[in-house]
Amino acid sequence: MDLVLGIDGGGTGCRAALANASGDILGRGRGGPANIRTDLAGACHNIVEAARQALVDAGQDPASIATVDAVLGLAGANVGDYKQRLEDMLPFRNSSVENDSLISLEGALGDHDGAIAALGTGTVYLGRRAGQFQPLGGWGFQIGDLGSGARIGRDLLQETLLVYDRIHAGSALTDIMLERFNGNPSDIVEFTTNAKPGDYGQFAPMVFEHAAKGDAVGQKLVDRAVADVEETLAVFDLTPSERLCLLGGLAGLYAPLLSKRYRAIMHPPLQDALGGAVQMAVKKYAKAGGGHG
Amino acid sequence: MDLVLGIDGGGTGCRAALANASGDILGRGRGGPANIRTDLAGACHNIVEAARQALVDAGQDPASIATVDAVLGLAGANVGDYKQRLEDMLPFRNSSVENDSLISLEGALGDHDGAIAALGTGTVYLGRRAGQFQPLGGWGFQIGDLGSGARIGRDLLQETLLVYDRIHAGSALTDIMLERFNGNPSDIVEFTTNAKPGDYGQFAPMVFEHAAKGDAVGQKLVDRAVADVEETLAVFDLTPSERLCLLGGLAGLYAPLLSKRYRAIMHPPLQDALGGAVQMAVKKYAKAGGGHG
Repeated sequence: MDLVLGIDGGGTGCRAALANASGDILGRGRGGPANIRTDLAGACHNIVEAARQALVDAGQDPASIATVDAVLGLAGANVGDYKQRLEDMLPFRNSSVENDSLISLEGALGDHDGAIAALGTGTVYLGRRAGQFQPLGGWGFQIGDLGSGARIGRDLLQETLLVYDRIHAGSALTDIMLERFNGNPSDIVEFTTNAKPGDYGQFAPMVFEHAAKGDAVGQKLVDRAVADVEETLAVFDLTPSERLCLLGGLAGLYAPLLSKRYRAIMHPPLQDALGGAVQMAVKKYAKAGGGHG
Repeated sequence: MDLVLGIDGGGTGCRAALANASGDILGRGRGGPANIRTDLAGACHNIVEAARQALVDAGQDPASIATVDAVLGLAGANVGDYKQRLEDMLPFRNSSVENDSLISLEGALGDHDGAIAALGTGTVYLGRRAGQFQPLGGWGFQIGDLGSGARIGRDLLQETLLVYDRIHAGSALTDIMLERFNGNPSDIVEFTTNAKPGDYGQFAPMVFEHAAKGDAVGQKLVDRAVADVEETLAVFDLTPSERLCLLGGLAGLYAPLLSKRYRAIMHPPLQDALGGAVQMAVKKYAKAGGGHG
């Protein structure tokens, strides 16, 4: 029987799922981080560990790892020659290393055309139409990721200082932020000295909450973020028959705020990214009807 | 004869000027960095060195340092207890440690009321009316310094990526920027990984240049920056009899772009910051008519 592996990996860990030619999941496994850009050998080791676990979980001999075909979705696979180098290192019969957004899209949209918008600490988009892929954004916090939690949080801190200086009018939201930093703008500046995107992003849900309650500053920041997201979505020029899936930690907060045009074609993801990897592996490697091997 | 010292210090070095009770400069000296927040003892040492040089330059015994009164303008003097600690350490008869923006304002405006806007890699403002001071901005690159070279440069890089993704329309300016990074958006992202405010700021003059030639993206970025600066100036609510002085590396680029209201009260600085420190020392310590000591 043909068996395939789907693998979803990133900076915090990787997950593997073993499936038959029909896509039924037979076993699952987990492994450590898969940072292919910073530790290719370690990433390979952790991926293989997750794959072996999935084989054992399915009652298979882990030595049969050399007979399965795998699709891997990994952050950073679209940069440099990491894809080729990892494919050469992996012990599977066939390996296809893809960017993580590709398995997310496959999981979310299945066979439908459309686009995914991953709206979390950062933002990144991927569209697909008739087999053609179009990635957008994902350039990081400093000069990209518009509409992301990190950018919304950073905007809120900036706004709080503009209010402190009486350059802009304040609101309950900026009052709360200033209090949070002991009423001291220098404490806000101090915070930014070493703040990572996730540190800024922690404030984003609060901005959405206050905006929903009518807070003027919150509404201004959310309106800007929604406009940034829609400006990006506009590039895909989605048709009414295509699908839009919002993913990431802010998906639920953005969903009701997008214009009707986008709400009309919005669908929840069919599966998660790991499910997408499995589906890609089935399509790419498993023979119809199975049992040829 | 009463002698006074003016001292202007910051991260790159410090300058001292010795003057008589009429404010005539008798001698000058230079010393190393005066980073009072990171190296208070070293800053004190370098300040004293500059002061001794000024005494020697004026033909005075450097031992007479204990008989002169000094006004020092130092970056960071408005934070924590550095002002008091440094004043206690200095060997002068009387020492008055002030924030650097205060001696800049004194030098630029003399006895006039009004405001200074320091527009360089960062932005910071100080107003004075009837002896009352009003500082604005200066909160740094990440969440402040709107209209600064660093923010304009960062905006240009962001815009270049938005153009690359076809989210915004491009221009000659964004074409040049993309070429500068080998047509590769990842090179731009790489640049931002370790970029300091000054690294972003290097692109600001180019934005002004292209805006002046009618470049649409350049004009958009400059219009936003001018609006940010004017929004801050509005807080001072300057009257037609008050003065506005633009300082810093972008002063000359901003000057012709501000609205008529501000151009009408714009004056070149009367003196530099060191001259301001000397004037403050004369006003504070030197007896009218001199020669009482």
